[in-house]
Amino acid sequence: MQLIEKYIEIRKRTEHLCKPLQVEDYIPQPVPFASPPKWHLAHSTWFFEEMILKKNLQSYQEFHADFGFLFNSYYNTIGERTFRADRGNITRPGVSEVYAYRAHVDEKMRELLEQNLSSELRELIELGLNHEQQHQELLMTDLKYMLGHNPIFPVYDSSQNLLADVNLESGWASFDEGVYEVGHDGGAFCFDNELNKHKVYLQNFEISKSLVTNGEYLKFIEAGGYQHFDYWLDEGWSWLNENKIQSPLYWHKINGKWYYFTLSGLKEVDPNAILGHISYYEAQAYATWKGLRLPTEFEWEIASDSFSWGKRWEWTNSAYLPYPGFKTAEGAVGEYNGKFMINQMVLRGASVVTAPNHSRKTYRNFFHPHYQWQYSGIRLAK
Amino acid sequence: MQLIEKYIEIRKRTEHLCKPLQVEDYIPQPVPFASPPKWHLAHSTWFFEEMILKKNLQSYQEFHADFGFLFNSYYNTIGERTFRADRGNITRPGVSEVYAYRAHVDEKMRELLEQNLSSELRELIELGLNHEQQHQELLMTDLKYMLGHNPIFPVYDSSQNLLADVNLESGWASFDEGVYEVGHDGGAFCFDNELNKHKVYLQNFEISKSLVTNGEYLKFIEAGGYQHFDYWLDEGWSWLNENKIQSPLYWHKINGKWYYFTLSGLKEVDPNAILGHISYYEAQAYATWKGLRLPTEFEWEIASDSFSWGKRWEWTNSAYLPYPGFKTAEGAVGEYNGKFMINQMVLRGASVVTAPNHSRKTYRNFFHPHYQWQYSGIRLAK
Amino acid sequence: MQLIEKYIEIRKRTEHLCKPLQVEDYIPQPVPFASPPKWHLAHSTWFFEEMILKKNLQSYQEFHADFGFLFNSYYNTIGERTFRADRGNITRPGVSEVYAYRAHVDEKMRELLEQNLSSELRELIELGLNHEQQHQELLMTDLKYMLGHNPIFPVYDSSQNLLADVNLESGWASFDEGVYEVGHDGGAFCFDNELNKHKVYLQNFEISKSLVTNGEYLKFIEAGGYQHFDYWLDEGWSWLNENKIQSPLYWHKINGKWYYFTLSGLKEVDPNAILGHISYYEAQAYATWKGLRLPTEFEWEIASDSFSWGKRWEWTNSAYLPYPGFKTAEGAVGEYNGKFMINQMVLRGASVVTAPNHSRKTYRNFFHPHYQWQYSGIRLAK
Amino acid sequence: MQLIEKYIEIRKRTEHLCKPLQVEDYIPQPVPFASPPKWHLAHSTWFFEEMILKKNLQSYQEFHADFGFLFNSYYNTIGERTFRADRGNITRPGVSEVYAYRAHVDEKMRELLEQNLSSELRELIELGLNHEQQHQELLMTDLKYMLGHNPIFPVYDSSQNLLADVNLESGWASFDEGVYEVGHDGGAFCFDNELNKHKVYLQNFEISKSLVTNGEYLKFIEAGGYQHFDYWLDEGWSWLNENKIQSPLYWHKINGKWYYFTLSGLKEVDPNAILGHISYYEAQAYATWKGLRLPTEFEWEIASDSFSWGKRWEWTNSAYLPYPGFKTAEGAVGEYNGKFMINQMVLRGASVVTAPNHSRKTYRNFFHPHYQWQYSGIRLAK
Repeated sequence: MQLIEKYIEIRKRTEHLCKPLQVEDYIPQPVPFASPPKWHLAHSTWFFEEMILKKNLQSYQEFHADFGFLFNSYYNTIGERTFRADRGNITRPGVSEVYAYRAHVDEKMRELLEQNLSSELRELIELGLNHEQQHQELLMTDLKYMLGHNPIFPVYDSSQNLLADVNLESGWASFDEGVYEVGHDGGAFCFDNELNKHKVYLQNFEISKSLVTNGEYLKFIEAGGYQHFDYWLDEGWSWLNENKIQSPLYWHKINGKWYYFTLSGLKEVDPNAILGHISYYEAQAYATWKGLRLPTEFEWEIASDSFSWGKRWEWTNSAYLPYPGFKTAEGAVGEYNGKFMINQMVLRGASVVTAPNHSRKTYRNFFHPHYQWQYSGIRLAK
Repeated sequence: MQLIEKYIEIRKRTEHLCKPLQVEDYIPQPVPFASPPKWHLAHSTWFFEEMILKKNLQSYQEFHADFGFLFNSYYNTIGERTFRADRGNITRPGVSEVYAYRAHVDEKMRELLEQNLSSELRELIELGLNHEQQHQELLMTDLKYMLGHNPIFPVYDSSQNLLADVNLESGWASFDEGVYEVGHDGGAFCFDNELNKHKVYLQNFEISKSLVTNGEYLKFIEAGGYQHFDYWLDEGWSWLNENKIQSPLYWHKINGKWYYFTLSGLKEVDPNAILGHISYYEAQAYATWKGLRLPTEFEWEIASDSFSWGKRWEWTNSAYLPYPGFKTAEGAVGEYNGKFMINQMVLRGASVVTAPNHSRKTYRNFFHPHYQWQYSGIRLAK
Repeated sequence: MQLIEKYIEIRKRTEHLCKPLQVEDYIPQPVPFASPPKWHLAHSTWFFEEMILKKNLQSYQEFHADFGFLFNSYYNTIGERTFRADRGNITRPGVSEVYAYRAHVDEKMRELLEQNLSSELRELIELGLNHEQQHQELLMTDLKYMLGHNPIFPVYDSSQNLLADVNLESGWASFDEGVYEVGHDGGAFCFDNELNKHKVYLQNFEISKSLVTNGEYLKFIEAGGYQHFDYWLDEGWSWLNENKIQSPLYWHKINGKWYYFTLSGLKEVDPNAILGHISYYEAQAYATWKGLRLPTEFEWEIASDSFSWGKRWEWTNSAYLPYPGFKTAEGAVGEYNGKFMINQMVLRGASVVTAPNHSRKTYRNFFHPHYQWQYSGIRLAK
Repeated sequence: MQLIEKYIEIRKRTEHLCKPLQVEDYIPQPVPFASPPKWHLAHSTWFFEEMILKKNLQSYQEFHADFGFLFNSYYNTIGERTFRADRGNITRPGVSEVYAYRAHVDEKMRELLEQNLSSELRELIELGLNHEQQHQELLMTDLKYMLGHNPIFPVYDSSQNLLADVNLESGWASFDEGVYEVGHDGGAFCFDNELNKHKVYLQNFEISKSLVTNGEYLKFIEAGGYQHFDYWLDEGWSWLNENKIQSPLYWHKINGKWYYFTLSGLKEVDPNAILGHISYYEAQAYATWKGLRLPTEFEWEIASDSFSWGKRWEWTNSAYLPYPGFKTAEGAVGEYNGKFMINQMVLRGASVVTAPNHSRKTYRNFFHPHYQWQYSGIRLAK
């Protein structure tokens, strides 16, 4: 696909995801880590305006003098950033103005994309598109969080099946110890944290071809998993007690039966569906209870051709740290990944809300171990 | 005026206040103490549905099964209440649904009001209307807070003059010591906290006929008022340091000049206008710096005929406590006032955003001493 | 008694109270509001060194250059103060050094007291002695807090009876409405917050001659008093829930029976003894449950000759605010009382740990409404 | 050495470290992560009583019924544990009683050690001794923290040289990429987290033979290292701003000159001495500023024979995670290491306060990245 076609397709998809929304839904930021849809729409656009158009399209006139300030995220390099927890209070510019901002930037981007661009600039646009795809997923994840915390459980879209799939395979895949190659060779687009391809030494391991299901996890709950400290990391046990966690996020026990909130509304928990919305702490505790463990990110990557994946992010037992030879880029783009390499665990795979063509086996997602709001599940290893 | 006409007029005014709003503006709750406009619209309606229609109009069908739960406020008596800090995350029901809710309740209330009602029920409706007027003021106050914390300072309505007025009088009014009568005699509507008329003994006092102006307060700022602990109550000094307070709320020093956010946008501070948006701590510190003091609520009430008031709530040096013989009503209505009688200071007067016909000299407003978000000012006494 | 004799007696008493302590007991500050015994010993001494000796005894050499800094309390006027919550971490100077400090200051104070002193200086010394008596009581109260939070419940001194007394009287005292005089006339020592004698107008009231007993309060507990929001102030209900309060401080239910920690160790709760260690919130809730109320501080003062008091501080329904004409003194002494006049409620009376000759009917004690750590009880009014 | 001799020597050393202390110094817990000396003395003893004597010496009578409860640490398996932050408030049992406890346990341990013990029991005693050595180091680290936060900077012992050493070597050691062996083979004592010896693949790397000195770090400070976000991890930058960090712990700038608190008192910072008391965030920021990086724990281990180490713990760029095949032991001993394997970074080496014979190149120390209170420094790699 041409870059211009790709640009158009990806940008449209973001707006398509917002079709079922009312204006009101674009506004709230229920918790500091979950941004409003309006902000995702604007911030992904800001990337193209700030990083690309302002520097590369001479005729470019910025859409609004305040937007560079309002829709910046964590990029300390570029001006003062708005206080992250305040994103939900900025009602103006309104939703239609943000759509106008998108249209303005899209028009100018198309103008730019019709020119003969340096490969460096094309790569930066590619990065902007991948950034937008990441925000598509965050938009859906954050939206679910907001709707799922409304006591009347609104439906986003009942026609789409956004429940998790069921497992297609079972059994274990085995691997011998030895030297393996992991990481991305840089031949096509990837994020800087996936570079470079390099050798690692793995011990013998086996990895499950299936993900843990709701039914399997229910057995852990029923066996008192949330009441026994010995399955838990010390910080996991504190987290659970301080936050009164008794189940995955979105689960509700009503009259003795388990339900969960989905983007199609409140449903009875399907025991055969793949488990989701658990923290690393829960993943680790479940594995301990089973007498098993989580795979490392390298075991996962090496084994990934032997099972199907892509419906749930999978917690690994690897901390998010730089690969050998990792260098952050200069300037604002350099703030993309490297500065988060502490206190986060790697997730591999992808989820039902990941953008199409945005997953690969070397992809390194990462979150703090206490977050449940992702579509995150468990694959066991031994 | 007939009760039905009064009902219609007051209910309409709430909606009229919202005319300049965009849908987006109805949603956010920027801080737990400042509720979204949508919530004020719905909660004031809920009072009529829950307290009056459900019990007194036999044919009444509730508008929506969830609204009783969603738009309850602090009334512990009636069902579980929603967690107060979450009001800004409830995007559904949407704004138009809330207006439909209002229309539905208004229609049924008109139906009820055409009947022959007991005086007890008429009093409860009267309470509901006063409650709605209080929420009109809160709506404006909270809205100002939200807009005033948007870094682009949106204008609510530039055609209305919602700046504070200037003083019309000057000098001091003097009163001799002796027995005086304060409180409301209950002959017309009043809140339970104003009852009953009773005697108090006052010492000689003098009270200023004017309110402190921005210009006078600027002198306090320039004299280092915010840097000297000795003018401040111990808790005021902590509050100021922890919150880095250096001026009234909404004031911004830009290139050496003071501006303030108003509902008509950002304006240069008018030195002749009446000071507003200060905490009790600031009022007390200013008075101490001047070698004067704040009046008590009884001094204010006795003196109130000798000066003009109604453009700014005025902090008094009285704690919000029950009058002799105060009794809370039975049931939910009893939760209206009495349970807040701790750690709050009384304000007397009214402000530019107080509803018409909603002020009287016995009215007792009350807030915690650290709140700046009210239209609150200073009248000095000695 | 001569001032010098009084000085010696009061200073000795502080040390006598510490007789049962081990060196270890002098050190901890279990919570920011409860200071270590060592700090009370040193800070009360610091008052004499800093406020009196340095300014009035020409030959005076300060004991240690750091003590002025270490043992200052809230006196912002004099140098930088140590961070209040750190008092328990300052192990050096050690306990014996603090006793040497006391001896040094006492010797010099005796030298000074043998001179012909101005009445102003004598009044300041009188203030220092009253200050020391206040710290005697705080020392005992804080010590009880520390020992009472040790899971092995150490005994301070089993030979002393530091349990509350039982009521000696019963019934109600009645008073007619009218003008009464309250406050101190300043003829003998009093704190500035008691001045001046002034007139107040009281309504008819009745006040109980007895204090609420443990047995009476147990009925409130057993009637579900801590589970029903409607008896509680809104902030009281939040306080109770956030802190999981289910009983007065120091009470423990063990195998279905109520015990309480006393300075003589853990004892079964005596139903006839006077209730203590409750917050204002609890006092107010109990009164509401009984259909009664707490007296105001003025009702208490006027009625105080008609009942016995002095074994328990009694929460009143009066906020701690300045009397008419109240002026804070210049300088550090001015920080004594006035700056705390916000968000606190007045207690009248005295307790079993109040110093001898340190109580009078005009005395105004004050604490935040959530504090339970005082020897505080309930007298009802109607 | 015989196990009994080793036991006696190590137990004596703990008490020897406390020789310079006054009784007062044994008590405070200045922050939740720094325990009082008394607690270290008692808790290390509790290990022998609870884990060894109670189960293996039939005649054993516990010293005191409450001590098992009071001096337990994080061992959830054994009874309820005391709330960690309260260790400083437990004045009784006093210091001499804790020494009596130690003497009692030592006598019984000697009795046990004269018997013919199973190798399993000997290993558990070995673990208890290593546990005690760890607490020796913590005792010194925590003590420094307490004394270093006393504004008068008391001296622990001026005769001992507890300053950091200077570097003995310089230059870089180089290593070729390939398969290396790391971890402990279990032939002698080690902690479970060091097991087992296993292969890893390392890329080419170079590692500095010297540690960063105070003088080198001062250049980072003077170059504005603490003011530029781009050297810092995102969480490091937040940590620095929230805690107003401007230098390593214990450093004070007085009249333009840098001093640091040492166990011999306040000294001028020695530019040639090895830097200490920095967080991982600072180590990482310094390395980034230099255009270099921290070594991984495996690089460190492989290279450790080529430089001298043991005067400062060295932050590595490895997260504390389980080695392949790691299994936690059953019961309380299993709580030793595994449950902390999240959100912590590995430190290698040892420090001037590490117990003699308690270091080896496979040793894995670990702390949260924000802690500065360890004797922690920086070795660079590239």
